[in-house]
Amino acid sequence: MRKVCVVVASRANYGRIKSVMVAVKKHPDLELQLVVGASTLLERFGRAVDVIENDGFIPQRSIHYVVEGETLVTQAKSTGLGIVELSTAFSELKPDMVLTVADRFETMATAIASTYLNIPLVHIQGGEVSGNIDDRVRHAITKLADYHFVASDLSAERVILMGENPRSVFNFGCPSMDLLTQTDLSVSVDRMARYLGVGTSIDWGKPYILMIQHPVTTSYGQGFSEVSNTLNALKNIKGFQKIVMWPNVDAGSDDVSKGIRHFRENNMEEPIYYYKNFTPEDYAAVLNNAVCCAGNSSSFIREGAFMGVPAVVVGDRQVGREHGANVIFSDYTSGSVEQAIRKQIDRGRQDPDYRFGVGDAGLRIADKLSNIDLEGSLKTNIR
Amino acid sequence: MRKVCVVVASRANYGRIKSVMVAVKKHPDLELQLVVGASTLLERFGRAVDVIENDGFIPQRSIHYVVEGETLVTQAKSTGLGIVELSTAFSELKPDMVLTVADRFETMATAIASTYLNIPLVHIQGGEVSGNIDDRVRHAITKLADYHFVASDLSAERVILMGENPRSVFNFGCPSMDLLTQTDLSVSVDRMARYLGVGTSIDWGKPYILMIQHPVTTSYGQGFSEVSNTLNALKNIKGFQKIVMWPNVDAGSDDVSKGIRHFRENNMEEPIYYYKNFTPEDYAAVLNNAVCCAGNSSSFIREGAFMGVPAVVVGDRQVGREHGANVIFSDYTSGSVEQAIRKQIDRGRQDPDYRFGVGDAGLRIADKLSNIDLEGSLKTNIR
Amino acid sequence: MRKVCVVVASRANYGRIKSVMVAVKKHPDLELQLVVGASTLLERFGRAVDVIENDGFIPQRSIHYVVEGETLVTQAKSTGLGIVELSTAFSELKPDMVLTVADRFETMATAIASTYLNIPLVHIQGGEVSGNIDDRVRHAITKLADYHFVASDLSAERVILMGENPRSVFNFGCPSMDLLTQTDLSVSVDRMARYLGVGTSIDWGKPYILMIQHPVTTSYGQGFSEVSNTLNALKNIKGFQKIVMWPNVDAGSDDVSKGIRHFRENNMEEPIYYYKNFTPEDYAAVLNNAVCCAGNSSSFIREGAFMGVPAVVVGDRQVGREHGANVIFSDYTSGSVEQAIRKQIDRGRQDPDYRFGVGDAGLRIADKLSNIDLEGSLKTNIR
Amino acid sequence: MRKVCVVVASRANYGRIKSVMVAVKKHPDLELQLVVGASTLLERFGRAVDVIENDGFIPQRSIHYVVEGETLVTQAKSTGLGIVELSTAFSELKPDMVLTVADRFETMATAIASTYLNIPLVHIQGGEVSGNIDDRVRHAITKLADYHFVASDLSAERVILMGENPRSVFNFGCPSMDLLTQTDLSVSVDRMARYLGVGTSIDWGKPYILMIQHPVTTSYGQGFSEVSNTLNALKNIKGFQKIVMWPNVDAGSDDVSKGIRHFRENNMEEPIYYYKNFTPEDYAAVLNNAVCCAGNSSSFIREGAFMGVPAVVVGDRQVGREHGANVIFSDYTSGSVEQAIRKQIDRGRQDPDYRFGVGDAGLRIADKLSNIDLEGSLKTNIR
Repeated sequence: MRKVCVVVASRANYGRIKSVMVAVKKHPDLELQLVVGASTLLERFGRAVDVIENDGFIPQRSIHYVVEGETLVTQAKSTGLGIVELSTAFSELKPDMVLTVADRFETMATAIASTYLNIPLVHIQGGEVSGNIDDRVRHAITKLADYHFVASDLSAERVILMGENPRSVFNFGCPSMDLLTQTDLSVSVDRMARYLGVGTSIDWGKPYILMIQHPVTTSYGQGFSEVSNTLNALKNIKGFQKIVMWPNVDAGSDDVSKGIRHFRENNMEEPIYYYKNFTPEDYAAVLNNAVCCAGNSSSFIREGAFMGVPAVVVGDRQVGREHGANVIFSDYTSGSVEQAIRKQIDRGRQDPDYRFGVGDAGLRIADKLSNIDLEGSLKTNIR
Repeated sequence: MRKVCVVVASRANYGRIKSVMVAVKKHPDLELQLVVGASTLLERFGRAVDVIENDGFIPQRSIHYVVEGETLVTQAKSTGLGIVELSTAFSELKPDMVLTVADRFETMATAIASTYLNIPLVHIQGGEVSGNIDDRVRHAITKLADYHFVASDLSAERVILMGENPRSVFNFGCPSMDLLTQTDLSVSVDRMARYLGVGTSIDWGKPYILMIQHPVTTSYGQGFSEVSNTLNALKNIKGFQKIVMWPNVDAGSDDVSKGIRHFRENNMEEPIYYYKNFTPEDYAAVLNNAVCCAGNSSSFIREGAFMGVPAVVVGDRQVGREHGANVIFSDYTSGSVEQAIRKQIDRGRQDPDYRFGVGDAGLRIADKLSNIDLEGSLKTNIR
Repeated sequence: MRKVCVVVASRANYGRIKSVMVAVKKHPDLELQLVVGASTLLERFGRAVDVIENDGFIPQRSIHYVVEGETLVTQAKSTGLGIVELSTAFSELKPDMVLTVADRFETMATAIASTYLNIPLVHIQGGEVSGNIDDRVRHAITKLADYHFVASDLSAERVILMGENPRSVFNFGCPSMDLLTQTDLSVSVDRMARYLGVGTSIDWGKPYILMIQHPVTTSYGQGFSEVSNTLNALKNIKGFQKIVMWPNVDAGSDDVSKGIRHFRENNMEEPIYYYKNFTPEDYAAVLNNAVCCAGNSSSFIREGAFMGVPAVVVGDRQVGREHGANVIFSDYTSGSVEQAIRKQIDRGRQDPDYRFGVGDAGLRIADKLSNIDLEGSLKTNIR
Repeated sequence: MRKVCVVVASRANYGRIKSVMVAVKKHPDLELQLVVGASTLLERFGRAVDVIENDGFIPQRSIHYVVEGETLVTQAKSTGLGIVELSTAFSELKPDMVLTVADRFETMATAIASTYLNIPLVHIQGGEVSGNIDDRVRHAITKLADYHFVASDLSAERVILMGENPRSVFNFGCPSMDLLTQTDLSVSVDRMARYLGVGTSIDWGKPYILMIQHPVTTSYGQGFSEVSNTLNALKNIKGFQKIVMWPNVDAGSDDVSKGIRHFRENNMEEPIYYYKNFTPEDYAAVLNNAVCCAGNSSSFIREGAFMGVPAVVVGDRQVGREHGANVIFSDYTSGSVEQAIRKQIDRGRQDPDYRFGVGDAGLRIADKLSNIDLEGSLKTNIR
């Protein structure tokens, strides 16, 4: 019975890894250990831990390690504090392997704690390129990890080019896709009723544009104006409802939140609806039914490709990221964003693109985890 | 005036970076900021900070961040605590770049703090391969760093193969070599008198074998027997004095220290002399005059090549490491070590090998630091 | 030249200590060292550091150490992280004494770091009783401190009863009072213009009620309903404008903030104005001109007595606290709060009560700091 | 079933609390939760955790939180790190109360974590007076604690004088005494064989003097000379074997250890035997059979009184501490210590003195814990 420890440290993390968690939990030779921490525990970020527990997962550990401030320095400190506490947790839980996803600071904390404890590290979603600080972190984690479950052929190629052993690299697609094949992707009024916010409600039967804009670490300090521009672009496009989601906790998210709050308070009359959190399933449905989505969420590129949802990716957070035909890029100016959204609405729905998987990643990853070699290391010398 | 912040976190770190610090301090366009921390402040590891201050460097910050225990888990925690505190220091000192050396946990802490603070990171001695957990850490730091000052052509090649921009990679040799060209490398009694330990003293005029054996993170728990074997091999080789140095603070160093202590207490009558610390200059002289050196210090490979000192590298800590003709390898058994040492004594002194530099690395690195581009990033996509 | 290190860790802290900082800075034999940290650096709590710097104080250190969550566990962790980082700061700044105010978790962090570093600790506002967890912390700090500058005779008596040496206890009054004698306490439109929030503005010429309600650590989890009750009481009292201030960062402040936010979004049309932060001087003016104040801010009791402002103190956060005739107490129910406010409005302005000082505390404290004995300790055995 | 969480953080802690742990474990209405941490996990301090597990206790958590250095600053940092990690542990273990002993930095960490988490805190051995920084910490913990199990009438009186509610204060004696009534207190060769160190062995059948000297936090930096003086005094007293124990981990223990090491290496021929650790039972036997004990261990005063062992208490670490007729005090000079030891050897064994309990403290404390009020608080206002 192999103990597989998964650290879920943000709303986005959970969406990406959920189908793997389900498959590990069900697998006869695997035992799931769950550590939740960081922004999953925070009210301001919608307490994803409640969704996780609702889904039937019982965390072995719940650890607060976000140093407040959402500045560059607090992001670094959160990483440090995360390492301190995750080391204690891992040394007590004694997992046979640790799973970590993507490229955020919590991912780095998990990777370092696991590496120094000599626990085999499994990295999901390595090898991608998004054009900012996340790239460095993601690639550094690749160099720490023992096994790599990448989301596309291109990513596999990059991981191998960085010197990883091809036998440690598997492309089973992105686990986020799994959800899409198992979920009802419609937004009925009944289903969405639980997300009733304050003020007048969105009419789920009518068309809407979805916006999510996270802060970009390397352009720290620009969040307020960047998000304001996108919001103003949305405002100019009449005839649609709009859904705006609050950003992840990150260096700069205070700035972005302030931009949204400021816009909102000056535009109370606009048909714009603000949400903190959906379950991954409900989020998928919301994305699936958008006329267009705008901002810089990686789900626009990833799940968006699978569904064919028209997406406008704003700014440089995702520049260079592998993408399908559903995406067009825009700079941060209000005019460009507006123009790109209009263009995408005209183009309409695209054909599905399965470059990031067909929806069986969770099962295949769990199965592979049950028989990878945990004794030796596949790490090889470069050259 | 560019502010160059150097973090010195161990005795070994200092030896490697000293000539760069001297050159930065003297350079008209650079200002040196010095942060000392971790084992440089610890009595048990010879308080390298005293040597550093004696050399005329005044630390801007002195930070304790070693979590005691020398286990895997405390090594991880020290990294975390280091990140927490170095973030505060960097955010206050506001350097234009941060310099970090090699591959230890303190190096990782420096690299992460600097990366998340968006401060350009300069890595010295990337691209090497030594066959254990240090490789992962070293390569991960390479993926975080903006500039790479490597120590050999082979290392440069590896850094580039991992996807780094060739324009960000410079091979000026290893700064440790610089010292060797500027120092008197003889061990006079006068010079060494200050290192008088307890008991009878070594006779610096007579031949001696030098032993340094650090714990190996990936074979954690074997330190006691490994060092005992090497010590027993030394004991069997009569007719020479022996110098034994205490190991670095690391996961497992307790074990190694215990092995040395145990051996020592049962072999008080042997002509073996135990030292905690030398200045880098005096250490170079001690190494230079050894009939043979044995253990796993990377100085045997590095400075040893430059000097041509016969070296027996024991175990897998340095396996795969690029080396000159002065080195032969041995497994951990007492017999093999003994045999290898005897062989090396027979072979005697080798010709100098300049593969790790000719002794001008510090000056050339400082000069390059004064004109590298700090605005843009040379980080490129892989493929 | 004695170095006096003051740690300012919250908006409330600063108001309490400012006149001492001014006096220390001006004193010929004293040098002020300033460390700012915790919520003073946080956007959400109005970045008091900006006010502090505007007042001409330059921090030697700015340290983030709030672990996000505002739960009991994160409050404890923030204390721990504060100790870790303040220890580094104190060991570098080498003050001759450390000053700390009141009873919050940041105060405890300062007290512990200072005690373990053998730096004489000066505590301001010991000996008070407020009936909750703050009492424990405050009294524990008293037992750690070397000198006690209390705010009333009753507090002096209590400090001595706990076993402190009477010669180490001084009652010069509360430094918060100093401000009141040096400031214009009127709220002109010009003066307050800089605090323009969103939406329609308050008319400073018309009467208003001021509300501040902090979370109460020992009734953790009740914040939402408690603050809602008070807000509903306010709503029922027609004919007045109302000013509501956001709470301090504390375990439970998320709850209180949510209560305020929820109320606000459902009562956008009410003449209620929400503020994050005033300068201490402007806050004094706002308080001074209130028809009545309600909630649990200790300023209602302290500055309120000096000014004679009618105050309704809600709940048990300040129960047992020494107070003047301007205060009446109420339980948490909406009805009681409403009734008490109506009663206070009828009673109107009270006579000034100088039990907490006449306004010269800062100068007298600074003067005393310049000649207290720092070598020996006045700590005596109990009995 | 009440969950009682005990934090054991040093060898000395364990000796003091063991009988309470046994009684809690056996009590039908109580469940023992055990957290071990700090120096109990460290090789250098004899890994008390091994003794604890040998005694049949299984720790729920093992947490490293000693920041290495044994300086004032690292002692403070260890406290901070302890709070961070104990907060996580307590929030997961959810005990009904937390038990903490005495006055060391780990005790403070436990007390603060528990207080901020609103978990009732039970303090054992409050109210004592020892004349240094420990007094501050001990009294501060008293002000944080809900219940006080003191070791003598005098201590009870002091706790109450500091303002604690008499109904929360119980004098059942010191739990260390319990061991003495349940253990064979003879030192047979068989029993002690497991403690065979290096070199020649002590002859347990012949008379010996026992020495333990801990660093004194408030005279930080004097440890080397202080311990050297005592050791020289021992050396001058011929005709006895001597047992020397290594000190606790504390600010200054490096200094003391160095003093012992230095003395030892220059006095290898003396009949002096050095030990790191005994089980509490074996330690009691060693103390009981000493002709005289010298140094500053509080066991000399505590268990020494119960047994009537002649003791010389050196320096100011225990000055003012309540003691029986078995104790005489000495200053730090070698001559005074020697003279005092000679005098005590002449006086010989004293009558037992039961002022610190008769040996049933563990049972009585456990029983009381099963029925104290955990809902309300007995904390009262001072005056």
